[in-house]
Amino acid sequence: MYSFTNDYSEGAHPRILKAMMETNLTQNTGYSQDIHTTHAIDLIRSEIKQPNADIHIIAGGTQTNLITISAALRPHQAVISAVTGHINVHETGAIEATGHKVLAMETKDGKLTPNLVLQALEFHTDEHMVQPKMVYISNSTEVGTQYTKTELEALSHLCRQKGLYLFMDGARMGAALTSPINDLTLADIASLTDVFYIGGTKNGALFGEALIILNDELKPDFRFMIKQKGAMLAKGWLLGIQFEELFQNNLFFDMASHANAMAGKLRTALTDKGFSFAYDSQTNQLFPVFSNEMIAELAKEFTFNMDKKIDETHSSIRLVTSWATTEDGVEEFIRFLKKY
Amino acid sequence: MYSFTNDYSEGAHPRILKAMMETNLTQNTGYSQDIHTTHAIDLIRSEIKQPNADIHIIAGGTQTNLITISAALRPHQAVISAVTGHINVHETGAIEATGHKVLAMETKDGKLTPNLVLQALEFHTDEHMVQPKMVYISNSTEVGTQYTKTELEALSHLCRQKGLYLFMDGARMGAALTSPINDLTLADIASLTDVFYIGGTKNGALFGEALIILNDELKPDFRFMIKQKGAMLAKGWLLGIQFEELFQNNLFFDMASHANAMAGKLRTALTDKGFSFAYDSQTNQLFPVFSNEMIAELAKEFTFNMDKKIDETHSSIRLVTSWATTEDGVEEFIRFLKKY
Amino acid sequence: MYSFTNDYSEGAHPRILKAMMETNLTQNTGYSQDIHTTHAIDLIRSEIKQPNADIHIIAGGTQTNLITISAALRPHQAVISAVTGHINVHETGAIEATGHKVLAMETKDGKLTPNLVLQALEFHTDEHMVQPKMVYISNSTEVGTQYTKTELEALSHLCRQKGLYLFMDGARMGAALTSPINDLTLADIASLTDVFYIGGTKNGALFGEALIILNDELKPDFRFMIKQKGAMLAKGWLLGIQFEELFQNNLFFDMASHANAMAGKLRTALTDKGFSFAYDSQTNQLFPVFSNEMIAELAKEFTFNMDKKIDETHSSIRLVTSWATTEDGVEEFIRFLKKY
Amino acid sequence: MYSFTNDYSEGAHPRILKAMMETNLTQNTGYSQDIHTTHAIDLIRSEIKQPNADIHIIAGGTQTNLITISAALRPHQAVISAVTGHINVHETGAIEATGHKVLAMETKDGKLTPNLVLQALEFHTDEHMVQPKMVYISNSTEVGTQYTKTELEALSHLCRQKGLYLFMDGARMGAALTSPINDLTLADIASLTDVFYIGGTKNGALFGEALIILNDELKPDFRFMIKQKGAMLAKGWLLGIQFEELFQNNLFFDMASHANAMAGKLRTALTDKGFSFAYDSQTNQLFPVFSNEMIAELAKEFTFNMDKKIDETHSSIRLVTSWATTEDGVEEFIRFLKKY
Repeated sequence: MYSFTNDYSEGAHPRILKAMMETNLTQNTGYSQDIHTTHAIDLIRSEIKQPNADIHIIAGGTQTNLITISAALRPHQAVISAVTGHINVHETGAIEATGHKVLAMETKDGKLTPNLVLQALEFHTDEHMVQPKMVYISNSTEVGTQYTKTELEALSHLCRQKGLYLFMDGARMGAALTSPINDLTLADIASLTDVFYIGGTKNGALFGEALIILNDELKPDFRFMIKQKGAMLAKGWLLGIQFEELFQNNLFFDMASHANAMAGKLRTALTDKGFSFAYDSQTNQLFPVFSNEMIAELAKEFTFNMDKKIDETHSSIRLVTSWATTEDGVEEFIRFLKKY
Repeated sequence: MYSFTNDYSEGAHPRILKAMMETNLTQNTGYSQDIHTTHAIDLIRSEIKQPNADIHIIAGGTQTNLITISAALRPHQAVISAVTGHINVHETGAIEATGHKVLAMETKDGKLTPNLVLQALEFHTDEHMVQPKMVYISNSTEVGTQYTKTELEALSHLCRQKGLYLFMDGARMGAALTSPINDLTLADIASLTDVFYIGGTKNGALFGEALIILNDELKPDFRFMIKQKGAMLAKGWLLGIQFEELFQNNLFFDMASHANAMAGKLRTALTDKGFSFAYDSQTNQLFPVFSNEMIAELAKEFTFNMDKKIDETHSSIRLVTSWATTEDGVEEFIRFLKKY
Repeated sequence: MYSFTNDYSEGAHPRILKAMMETNLTQNTGYSQDIHTTHAIDLIRSEIKQPNADIHIIAGGTQTNLITISAALRPHQAVISAVTGHINVHETGAIEATGHKVLAMETKDGKLTPNLVLQALEFHTDEHMVQPKMVYISNSTEVGTQYTKTELEALSHLCRQKGLYLFMDGARMGAALTSPINDLTLADIASLTDVFYIGGTKNGALFGEALIILNDELKPDFRFMIKQKGAMLAKGWLLGIQFEELFQNNLFFDMASHANAMAGKLRTALTDKGFSFAYDSQTNQLFPVFSNEMIAELAKEFTFNMDKKIDETHSSIRLVTSWATTEDGVEEFIRFLKKY
Repeated sequence: MYSFTNDYSEGAHPRILKAMMETNLTQNTGYSQDIHTTHAIDLIRSEIKQPNADIHIIAGGTQTNLITISAALRPHQAVISAVTGHINVHETGAIEATGHKVLAMETKDGKLTPNLVLQALEFHTDEHMVQPKMVYISNSTEVGTQYTKTELEALSHLCRQKGLYLFMDGARMGAALTSPINDLTLADIASLTDVFYIGGTKNGALFGEALIILNDELKPDFRFMIKQKGAMLAKGWLLGIQFEELFQNNLFFDMASHANAMAGKLRTALTDKGFSFAYDSQTNQLFPVFSNEMIAELAKEFTFNMDKKIDETHSSIRLVTSWATTEDGVEEFIRFLKKY
């Protein structure tokens, strides 16, 4: 039973585990004030070309989102998100639990546009309503789509003009940056957002998201926020070691490229067979539309998540590939397809 | 420069890392719904003799504290703690950030007593004040002391009589249970508390605290709370694998015994030289009182934390040993002592 | 310049002020533990035929909403509301500030239906999402519409079947209950909801909402919640005196009937002239659609709020009548209409 | 049965009620954007000699405290208070419910000193602990004492040096400013604090506290905070009218002077009979120490609150006078004393 359920079904790239083994008995300073974390931060600063960025490596994505948003907003302020945004549906109200409304905008492809942001601003006119102050976007998005440089520049321009913070959730940043249609670099993203993160959990680390704060307003006392939300890992060097490996020898990009390549094979096979997709993704998440009978057959050989009902007899499913997805797994799926 | 700064300066016991390596490429279900976690939970249920306990393994202690307390209390309810309690001083207001007051009681040894709990209850008489509803204790405590069975029974009895939840923070449970003066078992603790946890981070795991819920009132929807606070690890089997190892072949207790044995050697040497202690600890944290000059000399060869000022010329420091503390490190410290 | 801006532009009915004057120098017990409040509660219990209801009179509507919802929900639970619900748009995120997500459902007339509630339930399937636990409805709604007995019974039935609390915001309860199409009594509402309130602020009191808790699960420690949110008025008897007057000699219903009668005159005049309405209201809020030029003219003689853009040249406005709206004010408006 | 229970047992000064009656049927703009509120704000600005102060009139003290503190602090920041501070004991954890720890310092007279503030600062050294950012003091204090100009200057100086906001709760400001030992003016207080309020509820208004924000950092978006916490009164002009009356013709000071004069008579009579006091108060709250038998006798003729146990046979009680306390009531008490 091969799994295309998600991109966090396996452990970590062997080079990461090896580095953890080699340093296992060395005494380290706790709470991310160790030499590995410092080195990882230097590597990332160099990659993004922002020597003054504040960088904190945090274990998980929901944690990173709730810490960042609650640190940035005053009590009456809200964050604008796509309806499909992770913070809006899949974090059990984590943002609201810190006191802030998520202003969820309908989109057709999981991406916010300047126009949608403007709509949210225009609706919120006075003190009887929350005040939008941050824009949250994901790249790649929860439905596998991604932002082009032109799109991100337009959002960034509007946010700066309107005094909004632009926050990019990069839990699947690797998949976005190594997609065939990508035209963004980490340095571009660093120059266009106020804060963003680079996801390790979904790209070959055991866990870990590197949060990068560019806007000086968001920097003060950030470690207090991490600690208060229970996210300051005692053995914080484990995060540092993992990002050292990810940003040495291109490992981060190589793993994401592999995930995308595996998805590409699936996409080609699906397209060749004439299947359509609920969303037009070039990254490691695919949302093919199948008949419900076919889905039932598929579920006997593979695990995956349901996406949504398309019509009475069809639904879309979600197939996810990862750094660890095997050619064999993909071939097995393509063989299954041949029956249709 | 040998470190006695804390018990989380090294990685994990080699058996734990080995288990992680061996399963690294196996596809697992995420979010702690995997077979390793299930197995670890079975091992712990058996150890504590509570087949109906709900068990959740969470990455860190502050997380575990804030999730447990905020899940248990209604908005107007408060938790009673020693002034020295971790939740009162060293979690950056994590409990208050979830909306709840910590009622901090002065103690001389870091331990709550029935009398102190009664004082808190008697002071809070009506709806103009918060309502105490939970009692938080640590075993071993933040100052190295520990509860005897008689003491815990008395607290438990009072809590049940008064309708208070009794919550034991077991971040250093191993040190408590393997101390020479301990007379409690995990099964005793499970029968006397409403909820407690067994700490892995400070006893040879990379991270992980096994939270054990005994009281049925505290069980419903607990996974929602874990997710909302950002503590549901994607690759949750990493927690399961670690607790499988800890509760097989006595590893948890063996590691804690080693830490205590190393502290015992230090204690004997200190006592032999006539030094006194700020707190009377039989666990892996010692708080010797030294002259400030001696502390300055010590800091040239060892790292450790300051505890508090005793008088104009003396202070107490904190020395912590761990599962990984070496005989050599201890001997080196004893050699240092000989100069005094 | 006559105002149809809202139903809280004038003070209180003279009988209410008279009662406050007469008791002004009598010494009273504070914090709503006085004889006037007790008497008012008795009058309301009798009116709703629920001798065991817990009743608390609170100064304002946003306060009442946020206290009730945060007292009822555990941290991971959410409240379902119409998109137009007061808690969703006009309370500056008050509910989110207590930690809870508002699940906003699109409606065409401001009213929730069993089907919409079911949609919300079906979408929220597991611990990665919030858990719907309460249904919030307003009667009359924010757009002037109201629930029939059949509609409320259907909602109530579904809520009981699914374990959801049904909460009715009655800030404009008087307008609903005295509308020509109403078939509900306060006793009906008390038997069909878990908690609801009767609004004084928008029906001739200086301030005050009488919150009525029917479901025993929602009763414990409610005064703690009122105090914690800053809503326990020191001179609480001021609330009691007002509700004594409202529920003696039919004053509450008489004032609401007057407001509805004034709106009825406006509606008839508008309908006669062929104007349409954005919402089909039989209560004291009307939403006529006018050309933008006509609105500009109207604004020279009357104050009112804009509702929304209908098309490039038309918008709807909101006209509100109250217990204090004068026949002269209404006639003046009708005279204005004659020009069109 | 005459009541010395508190200073909010009666309604409002007749001039205030008269003003409310006279304007009752005038249509006003809601939410404190009316001409009475504007006028009241002008009167206060002139009184405090701060034309740029932002002033908001809010119904109650707990509300005012929780709004001000939660508006000022970032999530990891805390407020320093005396143990006896209203926010620490008598607001049901209202401050913690907004997410912030109250750092409570033991005092002997209810007053914070620079030394106590420094102690709090020195204890909180890093991101594992909350960050003190605001100092909360009450004048007069909860135990009837008050700040001298020298004391307030010293606190103010320290706060400015250390970057702490100084917030004065003036629920009983009138009693402080008209006490025989007072040497502060409202203008002094406005120049020495960052934010403070002038209490109406406990000095002859039906309700209302005028919050005065001096520090520009605390001004932005404050009305959002008021609304979010449910404290924006629909008929806000009721607050404006009351403060218009209070700050015309010296009414605010005259009423407070009367309360203090009545307390002065009681104090003289008590001192003449040789009774001692738990706190040395020159304001409208007295804390005489009586034998428990005498207290039982007293309770047959007067109502009052218990303060605390002094020894096995003695306790202190709290006697409070107000703007409405009658000479007859005071004489009756003095007659009672003659029996001892």
